[in-house]
Amino acid sequence: MHNAQLYVVGLGPGNPDGITPQAREAIRRADCVAGYRLYVDLIPPAWLEGKTVITTGMRHEQERCQAAIDAARAGHVTVMVCSGDAGIYGMSGLVLEMLEAQGLLDSIPVEVVAGVPAVCAAAALLGAPLMHDFACVSLSDLLTPWEVIERRLHAACAADFVLALYNPRSRGRDWQLARALEIAREHRPTATPVGLVRQAGRAGEEASVHTLGSLNPEAVDMLSIVIIGNSASRQCCGRMITPRGYALRDRHAAE
Amino acid sequence: MHNAQLYVVGLGPGNPDGITPQAREAIRRADCVAGYRLYVDLIPPAWLEGKTVITTGMRHEQERCQAAIDAARAGHVTVMVCSGDAGIYGMSGLVLEMLEAQGLLDSIPVEVVAGVPAVCAAAALLGAPLMHDFACVSLSDLLTPWEVIERRLHAACAADFVLALYNPRSRGRDWQLARALEIAREHRPTATPVGLVRQAGRAGEEASVHTLGSLNPEAVDMLSIVIIGNSASRQCCGRMITPRGYALRDRHAAE
Repeated sequence: MHNAQLYVVGLGPGNPDGITPQAREAIRRADCVAGYRLYVDLIPPAWLEGKTVITTGMRHEQERCQAAIDAARAGHVTVMVCSGDAGIYGMSGLVLEMLEAQGLLDSIPVEVVAGVPAVCAAAALLGAPLMHDFACVSLSDLLTPWEVIERRLHAACAADFVLALYNPRSRGRDWQLARALEIAREHRPTATPVGLVRQAGRAGEEASVHTLGSLNPEAVDMLSIVIIGNSASRQCCGRMITPRGYALRDRHAAE
Repeated sequence: MHNAQLYVVGLGPGNPDGITPQAREAIRRADCVAGYRLYVDLIPPAWLEGKTVITTGMRHEQERCQAAIDAARAGHVTVMVCSGDAGIYGMSGLVLEMLEAQGLLDSIPVEVVAGVPAVCAAAALLGAPLMHDFACVSLSDLLTPWEVIERRLHAACAADFVLALYNPRSRGRDWQLARALEIAREHRPTATPVGLVRQAGRAGEEASVHTLGSLNPEAVDMLSIVIIGNSASRQCCGRMITPRGYALRDRHAAE
């Protein structure tokens, strides 16, 4: 299997314009492309011509990774694609964990190719909400106990991090976001800006700025990212801005 | 000034292969490209032919942003470039803050173009250290009081976030990283893996995995990113892996 090579590739938010040349080159070299169906659909069909494409449905992550590992073991140059970055709630971890468990981490060359994460694409549409120290928390409690997630939300808010929420809400997980906003309101004024971005970088993308008091969880779905500002974040001309530090705010306050 | 347009563009970690087509297109359209000299140097010279290039030294951020704003006001399509993502310790915030202060936020069209952040490029080289909830903290106390930074380090460690440190150490700020590691050791075992990446995505890139007990701050400089694992992170075959959740770990522990 001298050709064996496994790439785990982040495609960025979704538009081909957001796919780096490095990711594109990994796909070009591949014999086999594996991924969740909706993510493979982000790749221009012409790029996939003549390649074996392995797609699976949602929540079949292990099956999908195993198929990619098997293809690489069989000597194929194989790409496992993810949306956003491969390493932020992506597939790089599971691929490496499974290779490790199967004793293959030393024998199959693996390269992770970073992409533009969803949180950066969302932030760009909102203005500059991240800018200072921030924390990313997934509200999905499928693999993580909800108590751990609550502890993180409290910690991030108490220490005045900007807080980016992944997987904020789905049909099956419909109460977690409201609870997260309630926790944030324990630490910050209800006027704190909250950015909501749906489908960042894809057809139908929408960005809007709300507040901790006004965001309606019903407007949020699993294709959304929610960004809660820190104590210095503000809203201006429909944009959300977090200053780089506290120096300017303190100067304004002193004036 | 009907052509006026200001892009704030993230170039990604440094290699032209990491620059998205969207960023490249913004540069292609520009009459004027502004940025910190080392970042402008990341752009292939051929892309800059025939354009006005405005570069400034380090710490002249306001001067640089003002030059870009002035060029856009004069009717030029102008790009302000940043390394990594434009919104993570980048220039999108300062540009928007200055436009707001000058009453121009409504009159000059601004578009932020996201890029691959340094932390994702670093994570890809290490394996999959982020993978679960994580926090980014800059150890630079130029604009943020050190007490605020310490509070965030404690909060992130206590709530078991993976912790990514930007600006970990420079000649002028040589004690902050040692203090940050000391704080992390108050919350986590000294065997916790710590990834160190220098010059991610550029000539001379280096990635290595250490532990909270073994990382030597002297090996770290301002071109480095340091990633401290959470309680489930582990080291395997020279890679750093953080599992996606606690479910597997708990299953291993129960066996």
